[in-house]
Amino acid sequence: MKTYEILKDLAIIIIVAKLMGLVARKCKAPMVVGEMIAGLIIGPCLLGVLKPNDFISQMAEIGVILIMFSAGLETNLQELKKSGFVALLIACAGVAVPLVCGTLLYMCFHGFAAVGSDEFFKALFIGCIITATSVGITVETLKEMGCLKGHVGQTILSAAIIDDIVGIIVLTFVLGFKDPESNTAAVTGRIFMFLAISFILGYFIYRIFKVVDERYPHTRRIPIIALSLCFIMAYVAEKYFGIADITGAYIAGIILCNVRDAEYIDRKVNVNGYMFFAPIFFVGIGLKTDLSHIDSSMIVFSLAFVLTAMLSKVIGCGLVARCCKFSGIDSLKIGAGMMTRGEVALIITNKGLGMKIIDPSYFTAVILLIIVSSIVTPILLKFLYSKSPDPEPIHN
Amino acid sequence: MKTYEILKDLAIIIIVAKLMGLVARKCKAPMVVGEMIAGLIIGPCLLGVLKPNDFISQMAEIGVILIMFSAGLETNLQELKKSGFVALLIACAGVAVPLVCGTLLYMCFHGFAAVGSDEFFKALFIGCIITATSVGITVETLKEMGCLKGHVGQTILSAAIIDDIVGIIVLTFVLGFKDPESNTAAVTGRIFMFLAISFILGYFIYRIFKVVDERYPHTRRIPIIALSLCFIMAYVAEKYFGIADITGAYIAGIILCNVRDAEYIDRKVNVNGYMFFAPIFFVGIGLKTDLSHIDSSMIVFSLAFVLTAMLSKVIGCGLVARCCKFSGIDSLKIGAGMMTRGEVALIITNKGLGMKIIDPSYFTAVILLIIVSSIVTPILLKFLYSKSPDPEPIHN
Repeated sequence: MKTYEILKDLAIIIIVAKLMGLVARKCKAPMVVGEMIAGLIIGPCLLGVLKPNDFISQMAEIGVILIMFSAGLETNLQELKKSGFVALLIACAGVAVPLVCGTLLYMCFHGFAAVGSDEFFKALFIGCIITATSVGITVETLKEMGCLKGHVGQTILSAAIIDDIVGIIVLTFVLGFKDPESNTAAVTGRIFMFLAISFILGYFIYRIFKVVDERYPHTRRIPIIALSLCFIMAYVAEKYFGIADITGAYIAGIILCNVRDAEYIDRKVNVNGYMFFAPIFFVGIGLKTDLSHIDSSMIVFSLAFVLTAMLSKVIGCGLVARCCKFSGIDSLKIGAGMMTRGEVALIITNKGLGMKIIDPSYFTAVILLIIVSSIVTPILLKFLYSKSPDPEPIHN
Repeated sequence: MKTYEILKDLAIIIIVAKLMGLVARKCKAPMVVGEMIAGLIIGPCLLGVLKPNDFISQMAEIGVILIMFSAGLETNLQELKKSGFVALLIACAGVAVPLVCGTLLYMCFHGFAAVGSDEFFKALFIGCIITATSVGITVETLKEMGCLKGHVGQTILSAAIIDDIVGIIVLTFVLGFKDPESNTAAVTGRIFMFLAISFILGYFIYRIFKVVDERYPHTRRIPIIALSLCFIMAYVAEKYFGIADITGAYIAGIILCNVRDAEYIDRKVNVNGYMFFAPIFFVGIGLKTDLSHIDSSMIVFSLAFVLTAMLSKVIGCGLVARCCKFSGIDSLKIGAGMMTRGEVALIITNKGLGMKIIDPSYFTAVILLIIVSSIVTPILLKFLYSKSPDPEPIHN
């Protein structure tokens, strides 16, 4: 391939992704859905203008890393401390129940497999995919109704953040055990070692970074050093600890989320993200999605998958909220608010594809889940809030 | 190569480039010099941590395109119209004299070659490399002395911009004729067709873009559409007209340089540039630079090359300025101001390497030229201004 050929690929991806993203937004769906559909349209599935290639998958890899880094950077540790125990419980239930339900769902369709077998991991992985809440749509809906600062809104927000952290730890374990040569002790040891080293070294890096940041605030070197840290942690995680690179990038984000320029770094990373890498990742998913494998059983599975994913969150988070003395309808609001899925579900699916755990046909189910959940959530939330408005919005 | 391996390459490139860039700035040299030296250090020449690979060269290609697009965007057509004929004459001399001198220099070292032969094009290409002024250092020096708004300062600025345009047209012709199967009429026809189509279509694109920009100012779609235009024009130029992709990107920039959000687009493109692509390009040059071919004759050539490049600009621009009724010392100031070379010289050299016109050992000469010219220019300008300060600074 001549080097300049990549310019054509880039131009097509960027412009079609933006166009379809805008169309998706007009239809009140998330922009990423539009971008994936763009990939489906220009990919081998339909027009065949573009095929997945090394360059696209490398750029997409950077895109994923940037998205996870940005998610880490946007974590508000202060907020988490305030919201405390209740949010933690809701988040844990919001990970555990979908994980179990997803695993059982796959086994219902493909038979129960022995713990540790390949099929078992496949089932567990399907569970993993539906653990990650994407709270963006919920936040927008609550903001629009002026209910984000209410008790329910704040609980959803905190639970969703903890949900990400718990979810990524679960994913790390599942992927760690996937290796046929792995044994429980070694994998657990490796993961704890990585987390321990990250947090000890991370603390020192954070202190150093804080000093540099206070000395040279808002200079170019700040996002550049941050980005290097992110790439190094992602690389070291994958190469030396057998942990997903996205985990490393996410933790790098968390390490830096408390420096004063965290928002500045996030903005610069996002400019790179939205102009180049993120569209390439989402379009790339569309390119890789293989609709030819889809038969009636896959369609039935996809529908069951969407239903399981949505209900398991509502039930898991809702029940725990109810146990924590939220009213019935407020518990439902929390469950509904945690129901949406987004880019992280795609990133996990993509990871599973890269590790040959699942095949590309599962993208269809995940895309469907993202579309349906992001359409249903705002409607459901608006309905619930119309039945029972926030009694006492907290202004802080 | 595993996909995550690119993360290591990226981390190393970004951090070492930034570090060496800062060191270079401390030494009053341009940051790009530091970045190239970073490439020399981590490349096969010294440490051997990184080798050039497909991924790096593709990212570098995007970097070059972004730099040229940004240069086009920063063109101020209004300013050009004002400065008019004198600046045009100075610019033309500033291209023609170095072009001829560079060609003759190569021939003096390697024998005179028949017009149209490979050796002739190699000689002509050496001339091309030294046509492009990089006015950044001059602008900073003049700003620092408060002389940028003076008559001499404004003339230098305008001449440097026109110099870029003239230089790229010359390069386009030289590269066009390089193809052994080309004939004069066909190449000239192709280039004029491309320029004509660019300017006619460009006018309509500009009108449409202006409307979109006024309707959605400062939205993400503006830089994204602009970027796509840049990639498309670069690709079409190279693929269908046999014209360098950098010419296409530069013209795309000029087409959009008058829209209201040109500066906004430029800023967004630059964030991508400085965080990822541009450092990869400059470090990539260091990686490709092959010092093992350097012998005493190459060192002598490099020194002669630096001297020729600097003197030919001073003489070409200075003489024309003198003819245009500038005083002797003001003419010298103009000549000295036009003397610095920078990234464009590197981009052209890189292009020649890609087209197998010259070999990597010439990078050394070009890097030397950039270093020396950017050290000498500020010193010379300060000396000349101390002898004869601006008589009447124009404030507009």
